[in-house]
Amino acid sequence: MLISIYLHLPIRRAFSIVSNSNFIWVPVVVGLLAILFAVYLANYVLRKDTGTPAMQKVANAIFAGAIAFLNRQYRTIAILSVVAAIVVAIILALLGQGSPADKFNLAWHTGVAFLIGAFCSGVSGYIGMYVAVRANIRTASAARRSLGEALMVSLRGGAVSGFLVVALALLGVSLVFIAFGGIGTAQQIASTPSLIVGFGFGASFVALFAQLGGGIYTKAADVGADLVGKVEANIPEDDPRNPAVIADLVGDNVGDCAGRGADLFESSTAENIGTMILGVALFRLTNNVGWILFPLVMGAFGIIASAIGLLWIRPSVVVEPEKANGRDPGDIAMGQLNIGYYITCILSAIGMFVGSYLLLNVTTSNNQPLVTTGSIPSWVWFGLAGCIGILLSIAFVFITQFYTSGTYRPVREIAAASITGPATVIIAGIYIGLECVALPVLAISVALGLSYFLGSQVELGTHGVINVGGIFGTAAATVGMLMTCAYILAMDTFGPITDNAGGIAEMGGEAGSVRDITDALDGVGNTTKALTKGYGIGSAALAAFLLFSAYLDVLYSLRTQSAKAGVYNVNLADISVFIAALIGLTLILFFSSLAIRAVGAAAQNMIEEVRRQFRENPKIMAERVEDRVDPDYARCVDISTRGALRAMILPGIIAIATPIAVGTILGTQAAAAMLMVGTMGGIVLALFFNNGGGAWDNAKKFIEAGFLHINSAGVVDPNGMVHGKGSEEHKASVVGDTVGDPFKDTAGPSLHVLIKLLATITLVLAPLYVFLHP
Amino acid sequence: MLISIYLHLPIRRAFSIVSNSNFIWVPVVVGLLAILFAVYLANYVLRKDTGTPAMQKVANAIFAGAIAFLNRQYRTIAILSVVAAIVVAIILALLGQGSPADKFNLAWHTGVAFLIGAFCSGVSGYIGMYVAVRANIRTASAARRSLGEALMVSLRGGAVSGFLVVALALLGVSLVFIAFGGIGTAQQIASTPSLIVGFGFGASFVALFAQLGGGIYTKAADVGADLVGKVEANIPEDDPRNPAVIADLVGDNVGDCAGRGADLFESSTAENIGTMILGVALFRLTNNVGWILFPLVMGAFGIIASAIGLLWIRPSVVVEPEKANGRDPGDIAMGQLNIGYYITCILSAIGMFVGSYLLLNVTTSNNQPLVTTGSIPSWVWFGLAGCIGILLSIAFVFITQFYTSGTYRPVREIAAASITGPATVIIAGIYIGLECVALPVLAISVALGLSYFLGSQVELGTHGVINVGGIFGTAAATVGMLMTCAYILAMDTFGPITDNAGGIAEMGGEAGSVRDITDALDGVGNTTKALTKGYGIGSAALAAFLLFSAYLDVLYSLRTQSAKAGVYNVNLADISVFIAALIGLTLILFFSSLAIRAVGAAAQNMIEEVRRQFRENPKIMAERVEDRVDPDYARCVDISTRGALRAMILPGIIAIATPIAVGTILGTQAAAAMLMVGTMGGIVLALFFNNGGGAWDNAKKFIEAGFLHINSAGVVDPNGMVHGKGSEEHKASVVGDTVGDPFKDTAGPSLHVLIKLLATITLVLAPLYVFLHP
Repeated sequence: MLISIYLHLPIRRAFSIVSNSNFIWVPVVVGLLAILFAVYLANYVLRKDTGTPAMQKVANAIFAGAIAFLNRQYRTIAILSVVAAIVVAIILALLGQGSPADKFNLAWHTGVAFLIGAFCSGVSGYIGMYVAVRANIRTASAARRSLGEALMVSLRGGAVSGFLVVALALLGVSLVFIAFGGIGTAQQIASTPSLIVGFGFGASFVALFAQLGGGIYTKAADVGADLVGKVEANIPEDDPRNPAVIADLVGDNVGDCAGRGADLFESSTAENIGTMILGVALFRLTNNVGWILFPLVMGAFGIIASAIGLLWIRPSVVVEPEKANGRDPGDIAMGQLNIGYYITCILSAIGMFVGSYLLLNVTTSNNQPLVTTGSIPSWVWFGLAGCIGILLSIAFVFITQFYTSGTYRPVREIAAASITGPATVIIAGIYIGLECVALPVLAISVALGLSYFLGSQVELGTHGVINVGGIFGTAAATVGMLMTCAYILAMDTFGPITDNAGGIAEMGGEAGSVRDITDALDGVGNTTKALTKGYGIGSAALAAFLLFSAYLDVLYSLRTQSAKAGVYNVNLADISVFIAALIGLTLILFFSSLAIRAVGAAAQNMIEEVRRQFRENPKIMAERVEDRVDPDYARCVDISTRGALRAMILPGIIAIATPIAVGTILGTQAAAAMLMVGTMGGIVLALFFNNGGGAWDNAKKFIEAGFLHINSAGVVDPNGMVHGKGSEEHKASVVGDTVGDPFKDTAGPSLHVLIKLLATITLVLAPLYVFLHP
Repeated sequence: MLISIYLHLPIRRAFSIVSNSNFIWVPVVVGLLAILFAVYLANYVLRKDTGTPAMQKVANAIFAGAIAFLNRQYRTIAILSVVAAIVVAIILALLGQGSPADKFNLAWHTGVAFLIGAFCSGVSGYIGMYVAVRANIRTASAARRSLGEALMVSLRGGAVSGFLVVALALLGVSLVFIAFGGIGTAQQIASTPSLIVGFGFGASFVALFAQLGGGIYTKAADVGADLVGKVEANIPEDDPRNPAVIADLVGDNVGDCAGRGADLFESSTAENIGTMILGVALFRLTNNVGWILFPLVMGAFGIIASAIGLLWIRPSVVVEPEKANGRDPGDIAMGQLNIGYYITCILSAIGMFVGSYLLLNVTTSNNQPLVTTGSIPSWVWFGLAGCIGILLSIAFVFITQFYTSGTYRPVREIAAASITGPATVIIAGIYIGLECVALPVLAISVALGLSYFLGSQVELGTHGVINVGGIFGTAAATVGMLMTCAYILAMDTFGPITDNAGGIAEMGGEAGSVRDITDALDGVGNTTKALTKGYGIGSAALAAFLLFSAYLDVLYSLRTQSAKAGVYNVNLADISVFIAALIGLTLILFFSSLAIRAVGAAAQNMIEEVRRQFRENPKIMAERVEDRVDPDYARCVDISTRGALRAMILPGIIAIATPIAVGTILGTQAAAAMLMVGTMGGIVLALFFNNGGGAWDNAKKFIEAGFLHINSAGVVDPNGMVHGKGSEEHKASVVGDTVGDPFKDTAGPSLHVLIKLLATITLVLAPLYVFLHP
């Protein structure tokens, strides 16, 4: 149908020479509108009532803990960022390529862009979390009235973060691009994308520490609260007698909201900058700046699509528990969120074709039409490639659901393994985690291959073995996948808000019906959180190939004429390339080890503290409610805060130092191999951690929900007795869940960030590597 | 010193033209002598007495179970092998390169070599295990007299397997080489190494199924026996009341002896053939067949060195427990085994220089001396490169000990984590496992880089970016590392023999002093088993780079002239190469998943069976010993056998089908990338599985030995109370040990085999890939 629309329109070559540069204002305007939209949503949330004083007491404690952590965390990150910016600028000023003026020019642009990127990332994380922590109590309060209202408050609270993150990423890149020469002469435009690489590095830098710190915080608290509270003291989740309960609730915010926000801020940024760098070669070929602006304009379209998808979710689309007729109201709500997502996808696909048509339907610099297979116009090929990315995001939704939802084999297998104790639960979770890598990798492989194939149907020349059109096809797929980012992030942040709302309702002593509503929402939130992680790793995988290619383009521009020939060749048969690749893979495992160890250490402190409080203050667990005293929540919050901030430094430094060491010692092509194979390792290990952890979590929930039936021979049997909460099987499944916590909420998400950091470091320091290995 | 010896000898150019072909008889003669030596050792062992009737009853049950399993397993493998040989031969006959006669020639040679390789692998596994199972009771009986005698019986029993494996690998390759034209004309000699590639594939094929089947068997039995027996029924290890105890003891043999034997048979073979293929190019350059015969002659020297190292271990070198004066007699015995190993290493290093001098100190075909850096003769450079391999094997010994011995931080950290329950034990073991990858990879990287550098000091030209001398340097390092193989294997097989001896002593009702001796030996055996795995993965890593290079050489010989240029280039920037690499990495995880799942499934059956026997036959656990009846051991053996044989098929097929699919669809360079990155993944994951599992095992032993002291605040403290066997901490550590079992004994060792299989498949099917992607 789209092709036929095209046939009825005049061919719009007139756009293709100069006027496309005006498209730079699309992301600026839409970015500003998105911020206004976020303000509107925040206003909607904050106008809601804040419930009972008992609820407020809990919510205020969470708020204070979260803000205190974020303040301390961002203060540390700010110091690290300023140091990093100065070091990078000095390195580039002294050891780069070209004349002293060139070097100084690159150095200060990179340093400034780094700081702006770091600042934008920090701001989007901070504000998004601020609203989320304000939304939790309002969701709890709304849950006293209806599921529909509670859903609206929590989703829109999450959307504040989602839209802010995407808007700031878009605005940041666009404005820095404009400020650094993006609307100047053709020469200026062509050199600008490499100047803004620092923005991506800044974003990655902040994301690494935000995700690490938040991830360690949340899981240290969670593991501590669960192990002593649930297992040893036998009190339910979110029970106010548990000293670590507030720290646990704070952790949901600082880990999931702030961390994931920084992660996807980085993805958007990296994808934008990577595509813009690839666009430079095509801009030179065609004089059409549309190739460079493409990711920004598509990002803007994606924001619009996401807003429409979000606004489709109204209170009337969900079914209140009392009217559900036995159906699970949580499932119904999830179905509606999915519909909103599909609306976003469809609008994004349309936007992809429109954008390709406006920006990529072009001629060569001699005004000749591009040669394409079957004379099908280039925008159709790239539009189709972009749709591959959108389809990949949907495929990831299904695959993630299969591996982490109680409806399918994997989670049931883990639940059944609980019959033979914790050891078999762990073994089952690990083989499920290892298994679940295969389908996503196949999907990524097919998406990469297909989008490359589609792009290569447009004749744009080659760089060594790389077909330029093909690479731009994979870029279009990445852009397409990230168009739905704002919607995905809204769903993701929705998770911790509902999780917190449940905690507040429980601790505020609300009735069971309120808790039913928050439980339903919490279940939805767990699903959406798992989906977002799948989306995060899928988009990171696509972006990796892009950034790798962008790095080779940057190398090409830096190399002297005689050395340019070898740039597009990263030959594994070269021993230094082989060694770098092996080290890249090892870095992934070693970094994961440090991240998990940090949780282990912080969690042990927490466990000892909780045990100490129970031991030294028996009144916490007094028989009669009137005799009870509150435990010392603040001390647990403080232990998590200090533990997380101390623990995030070492993995962060290793992550940054290793690629620099490899590039410096082994050279540019080795750095490329480390990036590439490190990224592959990051993809597969993140999938293992995320899905393995998610499956354990849901196996525990499966048992808690009373779905595990065992007969007298000790075998799963639908006619057997229910072994639910409190059974030996449940205890075994809690061990699995606890092991999975640092997998899915610390190591996995930190790997998302790490692989993008590897790419942006390598991009930024390319001049250094070329200087050392000319 | 060696250099000065050289200076005093006349330069022996006379050797270098034709007469070097006589060196082919060195491995043949030494291989035959090694078989005679194995017969002598077997005779030594079998002459020993077989103890009491109670012990014989147990030993006979183990023997019957082990032989029954091996018979069924090898019957299955034999059928699979014949099918595979026929399929490969047909593929090569129809779809290879060159004239029909060429194709047919390659096809039948490959098919026949495959069957011989498969047969030799099977025979060495079978006979080695036969002697091991005979040695266990003799060790138990000797333990009634002295530690020294028990050590001799068990070590020499293990050495039968070790020397047989290495001798058959050497003899097999040498005789097939001779039979296929290795002593013919220069033209015949040059084409022979590619004809015997099938031998390596056959060995890999058998090794895969032997290791998978054995690994699944042993761990299903072990997990089943431990979980129900130790944890639920609270009976000690190897207690005769446990129905799974015989299956567990059988498993130690079929997994550790037969499996590891097949693994290292494959390593030796693959390393020999890979080096011989690389030698062909140098043979063409120099007319010196020494380049091709080098690995075989070195292997022969290595056998002699190993035999001398082994014979150094006499009863008099150990200290009997009653004379130990408080020192651990196990530690003393381990120290002596280490001295034997160092003797073997030093002799190997000397042999390396002698061999290099005899075979590699050569001229070009124009009788010009080779150009070398500093005019230092080529044999010195290659001798030094070979010593790098020997040093790497020693480095691996130390690194493995650091990560898996209770003396150092890692194991102690896991033991301390047991205070907070099984979940933190698992978390700690996983981060230790992930951490322990870094040092070995650094060691491998340095060894590869250094041996390449040393080899490249000899001017032998380049293949693309590959320096031919450098690659031969890495080959020399691999050859050097594998020279000590027979000694290592003897130490390895010693492990299950002592483990079994302990079980037989326990079940035969022997006195505590006997059990003390077998316990001391068992502790030594656990250490040597861990070391062998480190050695196995280290040598596999070195061999991988070698086989990868050999594959490129084979491709070069198959490609038409115009296509030869691209052969030595495996460019990660090429999208099909990237995708293949990603799939290679994923295969490693997916294969591990299948292997671990197989254990989980088989273990669950075993657990249910053991529970059923306890439930239905309470007399097994009767209070008074006289009232007790034996459980049904045979049923448990049968469950493990059937489970293991059924479960090994799917992972085996996936392992074989995936590289073939990638090579067929994506072409020769993609196949190379899959091999390379798959190998990297295999190295890091095998290290994770082996060392993580070993650390859990030893953390449990650490606690059982009473080394965990905890104070009243619940913190590790040397002045605190001992929390040993039966404590909550011990139970938590048993969970870790159980999880580690399939890691270290199924998944890890199977990955060793898989990465060599990937290489040999790719080598054998290169003509097919070239045919499909000309």
